[in-house]
Amino acid sequence: MKDKDLRKRVPYHIQRDVLDEQLSCSSLCFIIFSFSLFIRCTGPRFKSCFLSFVPLLAWLPRYPFRENAIGDLISGISVGIMHLPQGMAYALLAAVPPVFGLYSSFYPILIYFIFGTSKHISVGTYAVMSVMIGSVTERLAPDSDFVIPGNDTNSTTLDVFSRDAERVKIAATVTFLSGIFQVLLLGLVRFGFVVTYLSEPLVRAYTTAAAIHVIVSQLKYSFGINPQRYSGPLSLIYTVIEVCALLGQTNIGTLVVSIVTIIGLVAAKELSALAARKIPIPIPVELITIIIATVVSWQMDLKTEYGVEVVGEIPSGLQAPVAPAVSLLGSMVGDAFALAVVGYGIAISLGRIFALKYAYKVDSNQELIALGLSNSIGGLFNCFAISCSMSRTMVQVSTGGKSQVAGAISAVVILVILLKIGELFEELPKAVLAAIIYVNLQGMMKQFGDICSLWRTNKVDMVVWVMTLILTVLFNPDLGLAASIAFSILTVVFRTQLPKYSILGQVPGTDIYKPVEDYNQVKEIPGIMIFRSSATLYFANAEMYIDALYEKTGVDVAKLLSHKKKLEAKRLRKEKKAAKKAKKEAKKRAKEASAVSAFNQGEEPQFSDTDESGEEAEANGDVHKLSVKEPKDVAAVEAGPDPDTDTPLPRAIILDLSPVNFLDTVGVKTLRNIYKDYGEAGVQVYLCGCQRGVVESMEKGDFFNEKVTKSILFSSVHDAVLYCQQGNSKEVQYILMSYTHTRISEVS
Amino acid sequence: MKDKDLRKRVPYHIQRDVLDEQLSCSSLCFIIFSFSLFIRCTGPRFKSCFLSFVPLLAWLPRYPFRENAIGDLISGISVGIMHLPQGMAYALLAAVPPVFGLYSSFYPILIYFIFGTSKHISVGTYAVMSVMIGSVTERLAPDSDFVIPGNDTNSTTLDVFSRDAERVKIAATVTFLSGIFQVLLLGLVRFGFVVTYLSEPLVRAYTTAAAIHVIVSQLKYSFGINPQRYSGPLSLIYTVIEVCALLGQTNIGTLVVSIVTIIGLVAAKELSALAARKIPIPIPVELITIIIATVVSWQMDLKTEYGVEVVGEIPSGLQAPVAPAVSLLGSMVGDAFALAVVGYGIAISLGRIFALKYAYKVDSNQELIALGLSNSIGGLFNCFAISCSMSRTMVQVSTGGKSQVAGAISAVVILVILLKIGELFEELPKAVLAAIIYVNLQGMMKQFGDICSLWRTNKVDMVVWVMTLILTVLFNPDLGLAASIAFSILTVVFRTQLPKYSILGQVPGTDIYKPVEDYNQVKEIPGIMIFRSSATLYFANAEMYIDALYEKTGVDVAKLLSHKKKLEAKRLRKEKKAAKKAKKEAKKRAKEASAVSAFNQGEEPQFSDTDESGEEAEANGDVHKLSVKEPKDVAAVEAGPDPDTDTPLPRAIILDLSPVNFLDTVGVKTLRNIYKDYGEAGVQVYLCGCQRGVVESMEKGDFFNEKVTKSILFSSVHDAVLYCQQGNSKEVQYILMSYTHTRISEVS
Repeated sequence: MKDKDLRKRVPYHIQRDVLDEQLSCSSLCFIIFSFSLFIRCTGPRFKSCFLSFVPLLAWLPRYPFRENAIGDLISGISVGIMHLPQGMAYALLAAVPPVFGLYSSFYPILIYFIFGTSKHISVGTYAVMSVMIGSVTERLAPDSDFVIPGNDTNSTTLDVFSRDAERVKIAATVTFLSGIFQVLLLGLVRFGFVVTYLSEPLVRAYTTAAAIHVIVSQLKYSFGINPQRYSGPLSLIYTVIEVCALLGQTNIGTLVVSIVTIIGLVAAKELSALAARKIPIPIPVELITIIIATVVSWQMDLKTEYGVEVVGEIPSGLQAPVAPAVSLLGSMVGDAFALAVVGYGIAISLGRIFALKYAYKVDSNQELIALGLSNSIGGLFNCFAISCSMSRTMVQVSTGGKSQVAGAISAVVILVILLKIGELFEELPKAVLAAIIYVNLQGMMKQFGDICSLWRTNKVDMVVWVMTLILTVLFNPDLGLAASIAFSILTVVFRTQLPKYSILGQVPGTDIYKPVEDYNQVKEIPGIMIFRSSATLYFANAEMYIDALYEKTGVDVAKLLSHKKKLEAKRLRKEKKAAKKAKKEAKKRAKEASAVSAFNQGEEPQFSDTDESGEEAEANGDVHKLSVKEPKDVAAVEAGPDPDTDTPLPRAIILDLSPVNFLDTVGVKTLRNIYKDYGEAGVQVYLCGCQRGVVESMEKGDFFNEKVTKSILFSSVHDAVLYCQQGNSKEVQYILMSYTHTRISEVS
Repeated sequence: MKDKDLRKRVPYHIQRDVLDEQLSCSSLCFIIFSFSLFIRCTGPRFKSCFLSFVPLLAWLPRYPFRENAIGDLISGISVGIMHLPQGMAYALLAAVPPVFGLYSSFYPILIYFIFGTSKHISVGTYAVMSVMIGSVTERLAPDSDFVIPGNDTNSTTLDVFSRDAERVKIAATVTFLSGIFQVLLLGLVRFGFVVTYLSEPLVRAYTTAAAIHVIVSQLKYSFGINPQRYSGPLSLIYTVIEVCALLGQTNIGTLVVSIVTIIGLVAAKELSALAARKIPIPIPVELITIIIATVVSWQMDLKTEYGVEVVGEIPSGLQAPVAPAVSLLGSMVGDAFALAVVGYGIAISLGRIFALKYAYKVDSNQELIALGLSNSIGGLFNCFAISCSMSRTMVQVSTGGKSQVAGAISAVVILVILLKIGELFEELPKAVLAAIIYVNLQGMMKQFGDICSLWRTNKVDMVVWVMTLILTVLFNPDLGLAASIAFSILTVVFRTQLPKYSILGQVPGTDIYKPVEDYNQVKEIPGIMIFRSSATLYFANAEMYIDALYEKTGVDVAKLLSHKKKLEAKRLRKEKKAAKKAKKEAKKRAKEASAVSAFNQGEEPQFSDTDESGEEAEANGDVHKLSVKEPKDVAAVEAGPDPDTDTPLPRAIILDLSPVNFLDTVGVKTLRNIYKDYGEAGVQVYLCGCQRGVVESMEKGDFFNEKVTKSILFSSVHDAVLYCQQGNSKEVQYILMSYTHTRISEVS
């Protein structure tokens, strides 16, 4: 730190630097890529395509200066003023020197101004993104890599300078990579559907969990302590334990600064909220705070007198672009992907909210390109990854911002600060920035209230919320995001895996069929069972579907079949008997022959209960033991298709498949088994309400053959019921099915 | 190996042994657990509960001796004879000495005889389970742990004796643990639903992949080489490479034995298949093979003359039970869980097939208890994990086996072999056992044909099949199973994430509504749009639902709203104008006033296209640029509820929600937004076909309020259409909705 030679002794990755220089052609690659994008836009529709790629050219010439200019100017300045403290504070989160937060509040915003389509969102530094960057920088460049042995054996010093240089490089590289991911992977390869998995409960819980990470990572600045850096799962827990252990070493000066700032900020925010009704422009509370804090720190010399850590050197001016550290790319793919997804997810959801409110359209693909270019070009200029901040966006809108011009003006404000007055803030205590972060996280902490509201509205979503919070707190934001998305996808399976199975009955006098257990006045149709599952039918619930069907219809196919076999055996024995005693008793013979012929017509002859159990017990005891438990049921089964007995076996079963979204092979096989089993028992199965895709799956799955034709399909439950009731007259059916047939003959 | 002292020098885990002795109370725990299960069965329903817990007591007294005995005896002996070669061969897979395969073919079968409910499956050793065990044993007790430095510095020998002892202990422990998992986790905690994720394509691909693992693991015996052991992902690839590299060291004698055996086996199997029609009992091809091979090996002294590896010592008699190695439990939890799931999944699916065929019931919970006890008690007797084998089951059924008695008889056969004739097989070459394994895997390899048939029937299931194969081959059977299940769950999400959106039209003269694009003859109802998604509505497709709705209905809400705003602004300006020029032109004033009143009634006044674009272009250019692209559309939008214009805005939109299985908070919010947006544009939205649970989710999600009542819900599309057409007469609706209201008032 003291002389330049020192740095040479640091185990600093020299090959890496060489690699970087050799491969600074990567920026060349980027230019080539941009050019290819450009080429893609050539052709006859060049102009419109180019205009949609650079929306600025489309809207700026038409900018309604008279109407929007003043609003955009005021709003731009207000937001620019907010960028200053937020940029510096979030730079601490990303573990880079504060000035890089200012860079991140400048370059990306300018680029978004050119390519973005949302008029109201304030892109720039964002706490969640910053803490994700921080976990990368601190993992890849931990303090321990930059310890320099002192002159005597025990003392060591930290080479802060080269550590920060390395961290800036890492932050810029991961930002560059996330930008590339956004443009290429999400934008061009249309991988953008990933953000559809970011459901609202998940995003809210995720940002809350990220806020917890943010708070924990800032504790060290508030207490002025130096805890060890942990990475990987559970690092938050370890850090909290470490911080608690180090509380004894708290720097009193820093703690006082923290407490005073937090109290002051909260009070000032409350006051400004009260005053908001009277003053159109919000009071820049945070700007005033850092100005006061800087002056106090400078006057009281907090740094040397009380050992309060301050922001330190803020170089004036801008830096030349540097190539990303290609050698590091491999170790940060996962982080960059998480950054790309989260950054886009946050920005697009905020953008859509305001687009809907102010009635214009946000092009989600163009947004991806805009954010991706902001990040990748920003990464070349040592920025860290940006997204858009809720609080700044609210200020931008409430102060009258009406277009992207407000963002551009805020970038100009930051440029002025960077060039001229940045260095004035060198004496600002870091604890003040930490305090600003805490106070800004209020909104995210309020999201804990979601638990209560979700508890009332949707318990599964509440579980998603809680699990996302826990997973993200325990694993870090990157891994936690993946785990949370995986969990929320699993809930979809859970929800369809435990469906509600119902028997439907007719609402008297109508063609409406409703679940019997839900409605008092619906009536089951005698001899016909209408069965519906509330969920789609697929591998995870196919078995339950069959079980529920057997249970609800009161038909146990196993019993039915074993009974059938017994009848068959009996029939054969009786035939033999009959043949032997053919001429003995003419009366008896006639009776038996009628039973046989009845059976051959598909109707089982009726035997009394005692008759059957008496004769069969010995011969088929093994089969019997499982099926004789409820002799009444067996009687019902025996009754066969006779509708006059008390508990008849239904003549037909109608499966309402309207809630089925798709059929996999297991689903097709399940339906086939149901059809076959009941068919063997003499019960006809009809399917109704099948969607087009479901019928196609059945066709492809060889459900239909010469025995099972499409005539078992009906458009609605009522049609199927009418068909069953009207003595199977084919006419009704053909009227109803002709459309299906027409279409299906066209397809095949 | 040569003297006992040698063993002391092996780095053998002494503390582990101490631990084991101290904690042999674990078997005590097991007894206590069994007792608690017993206690659970006490009470008034003790007897029936106990009988269902020990099915043997229920069915054995009723055993139809005369009918079943002969079939069961022949079948039992046939299966017992198959157990001998299979048990020894699969022991090689599990990397334990062959005799432990015989133990595994004895104890678990006896226990299953007592507790099992399937009459036809042949439980016992199974290739897939054995190879999974093998990966555990070889991971936890690799050869390298048992290398003894020789007398001179370069030579080393392998302490096979203590290695095998350790591996047997590991195999027994993981088996014990998997049994405990089956009883406790899957059975008592009802975690058994996990097996519902084992869809048929997944199981078939998984067993095929496991067969590939089996073959690769047996190559070393066929070539007589000693490749290094790899574990973890990609180990199969490394092993294949290693085997290829070592092919030069092939033992010619072993290779000849392998080739001769394989050719002989295949030929004999073909012959026996041909002869099967004439001979009722299958020829025990494998038994004959190992007898011939043993005799040949003994006569030619293959072991010493040609260096062919033989089975080696087979101790006579049974071993006393030993406590599982508790210290090892932690390192094998994942493997044991995979074993538990796979073992149960295979057994229950085979059991169900035969239960359906022979018309009886398999109790899936009792099966879990039976398998779990077989494994956990078997684990105490040094068995390795069992499941049930397709090939043995087929033999058991085809030779006339009719009950669990056949299994018991096969266990007796194995007992005789163990006690008397086991040691005769000590000279059997291991290559012969490997050949038997290969030939037995034919069936699994034939499953590759699934790819073709699934390609025809269901592409998504084919992808599941291929991915399962790849994942299981690359990662090992344990991790591969988890990854495959995760993937197959993901496909459910994919399938519902890309639904088909349709506009429905009426089949003329009926109350049936079908997608317009699928059927030629259906007709859209003028002024009414009926929209349906083929899938459920939830977070992953909510956004697409809205987009598709806007696109299909041709209504762009953003445009509608911006237009509305313009109209509003115009109205205000006109009102001002009117107020100023109030008394100037009475005629003009009257015209404007009517327009205003019309608007207040929710109907937009009609303005001509030129009028609007001329006046507004300057003032609202910004908003305009996005919405003026298709002036015709804007005109359509303006037309408002007037059905007489050429491209009218629909009067009403009906969303058919019958395919919706559940609604999450995102879904409710989406419906609310659709209702609100169209409502602001003057289009009424009706929902129909909602299931009970969907309505409940909407109620809880505060979808309904004083403005949005349940009167927008309809039972069917036709009801909603009738309501729209009949000039909103409330009667129709109340008839239809009264049932919903009745029920809902009961609930709340």
